[in-house]
Amino acid sequence: MINEQYKKMLEGKSVIRQLSEFATARGKEIGYENVFDYSLGNPSVPVPEKFTETMIDLLKTKSSMELHGYSPSLGIASVKDAIAKSLNRRFGMDYTGNHIFPTTGAAGAVAHAVRCVTKPGDEVLTFAPYFPEYNPYINMSGAVLKVVPADTESFQINFEKLEEMLNEKTMALLVNTPNNPSGVVYSTATLKRLAEFLEQKQEEYGHDIFLISDEPYREIVFDGVDAPYVSKFYDNTLSCYSYAKSISIPGERMGYVAANPKCRDAELISAICGQISRGIGHNCPPSIIQLAAAKVLDLTSDMGIYETNMNILYKELTELGFSCVKPGGTFYIFPKALEEDAAAFCRKALRYDLVMVPSDSFGVPGYFRMAYCIETEKVERSLGAIRRFVKENY
Amino acid sequence: MINEQYKKMLEGKSVIRQLSEFATARGKEIGYENVFDYSLGNPSVPVPEKFTETMIDLLKTKSSMELHGYSPSLGIASVKDAIAKSLNRRFGMDYTGNHIFPTTGAAGAVAHAVRCVTKPGDEVLTFAPYFPEYNPYINMSGAVLKVVPADTESFQINFEKLEEMLNEKTMALLVNTPNNPSGVVYSTATLKRLAEFLEQKQEEYGHDIFLISDEPYREIVFDGVDAPYVSKFYDNTLSCYSYAKSISIPGERMGYVAANPKCRDAELISAICGQISRGIGHNCPPSIIQLAAAKVLDLTSDMGIYETNMNILYKELTELGFSCVKPGGTFYIFPKALEEDAAAFCRKALRYDLVMVPSDSFGVPGYFRMAYCIETEKVERSLGAIRRFVKENY
Repeated sequence: MINEQYKKMLEGKSVIRQLSEFATARGKEIGYENVFDYSLGNPSVPVPEKFTETMIDLLKTKSSMELHGYSPSLGIASVKDAIAKSLNRRFGMDYTGNHIFPTTGAAGAVAHAVRCVTKPGDEVLTFAPYFPEYNPYINMSGAVLKVVPADTESFQINFEKLEEMLNEKTMALLVNTPNNPSGVVYSTATLKRLAEFLEQKQEEYGHDIFLISDEPYREIVFDGVDAPYVSKFYDNTLSCYSYAKSISIPGERMGYVAANPKCRDAELISAICGQISRGIGHNCPPSIIQLAAAKVLDLTSDMGIYETNMNILYKELTELGFSCVKPGGTFYIFPKALEEDAAAFCRKALRYDLVMVPSDSFGVPGYFRMAYCIETEKVERSLGAIRRFVKENY
Repeated sequence: MINEQYKKMLEGKSVIRQLSEFATARGKEIGYENVFDYSLGNPSVPVPEKFTETMIDLLKTKSSMELHGYSPSLGIASVKDAIAKSLNRRFGMDYTGNHIFPTTGAAGAVAHAVRCVTKPGDEVLTFAPYFPEYNPYINMSGAVLKVVPADTESFQINFEKLEEMLNEKTMALLVNTPNNPSGVVYSTATLKRLAEFLEQKQEEYGHDIFLISDEPYREIVFDGVDAPYVSKFYDNTLSCYSYAKSISIPGERMGYVAANPKCRDAELISAICGQISRGIGHNCPPSIIQLAAAKVLDLTSDMGIYETNMNILYKELTELGFSCVKPGGTFYIFPKALEEDAAAFCRKALRYDLVMVPSDSFGVPGYFRMAYCIETEKVERSLGAIRRFVKENY
């Protein structure tokens, strides 16, 4: 019989998706160029040319059986080695290829990481504001996601609340820096304090507490921002990465779990991920994408546009009186709404063809997210609508 | 803490993988061309040229953001429509795109299908001989796989044993035709009888019993063999397909679940699969592979070599006195070993550089599997070794 649990999930519609559908429908009425669609976090810059060239070169020169053949179940060795070397060079780590497990994007990476280090019933803590898909990623593994309330002053970590909530059932923390939706990057001070706190708690409870670091926005950091590599601070760290944002290939599903070489059972994490994959029929990311990504590991798309857009919006929003923590990276900004009910605020904005996401599903009431991965020209055109919306309503 | 269940799984080594590793190591000693490696089911024919041309064309002509952007969470609509139309044309079905859910290969398809139609504790029956990875696909979903003993006369279905084992906890049957490892194709008579039996049992127990049809070898059927489309016979059928074998792209992870339009909740199956994907971070197969596969749906690699190889081996083996059901498709043959202990039989064969897989892990003792997806010239050269092996030992 049809599984009722999954069937029931169909009732809950994603707010982000509904808004995006509204934007598409409204675009058909007035032209999509006139809809200021800040709803979706889809990269808006082209892939690096070298990625495309590498794909074509692989297709033209490699034997098709070799190119499209099965990836080994733990990933293509040369690709894993190349990823390890790139991370070592850039972040001073000591990974070998064996610490890297290629996954279908960061989503796949987080889903694997949580299964590695928890069993059903264990608790996983994350920090508001947080990406709503963490709910299915964690809860459908059998572990239970709990959300630590936000420090709305800085959107760094609220350590007071963390201390209240962490208990002996907590087996992992899930962090996301640079953060969706706040755009904030955890500072060196934050990560040091977090590591010290977790080390103390590991000792107190006599068991490992893993840090699962979801970092698909790692390469989108703005000028002068302190953006340390999370795994440097705490041995029991599993870093979850995706090439979706850094080289604009979200549809090709390529990412990895990187196990800190000093974490518990570091040499086994990759093999354990392989076992998890067996049960979900996931196997590895596509062979050709693994091979092509390995050739552009240190490249990114030209992401200057995101910082340009952020600066334009941040200036306008603060001048209009919005309270707003300045983003240090990503392509999101997360200002406080001008009324308590963020959903009502965003509904009113729709009348000005401004599509923005209310913060409730991110675990913080009263804010809204704008995804500014759109053309700068459109950001500039949207300022008039933002001004009218604020003046006529607040 | 590291999940002990997955850690323990690392202890169980796959026999097939061990044999394949032996073949590789032996190849380094005597040259791989001298190792008669019948261990692995890896396609040995090139992809259709049109697939490669389409990939290059997409890379050269499509905007990179469009090409590599997120696939909708239920798959790219034009791809789903094209798959539905191709199935309708070839098998007289009435699918729409909405009945198709693209997955990472048939593995992903089976893993999704079983979660769709069972809940933890439910029983799923499959038929020996069977693909050993069904154990993790089913058991790691929480359902329980039970294996109906083989009808070793024909390797069709043993209905007597099926009747004994099916009970009110049985929520699904998992069939694989053309079959790995037997190479046998279920006949029209078998599938008719199975459908009648299941309909009667659905009525008796008052609940749906789904047929999950794993058919990655669907296009590898030999001349004159009766190879009906499973879903034609029984409404509650979910067909699980992969392009791995038909166009030789196993590493690119492209397949689908196709829900029979008359099955329970047919219109919802795709959306339910989407919910299952959320929990395992799977999302869809890579965008570019979805788009390229959609252009070659009715093509296959040139698979005549598999039939040629089968005929050579079948003739030789039967002349040597092996008892063997003639394969109707796939690239496997499954003869009876010449002693009771199939593992001992295959160990002796290794001395002749013949690498064959003992049948125990397929759920039938006393047989062995040869995967003849290798060059015909090598099959011919192996005959001398097979003869020597048999004459010197039996």
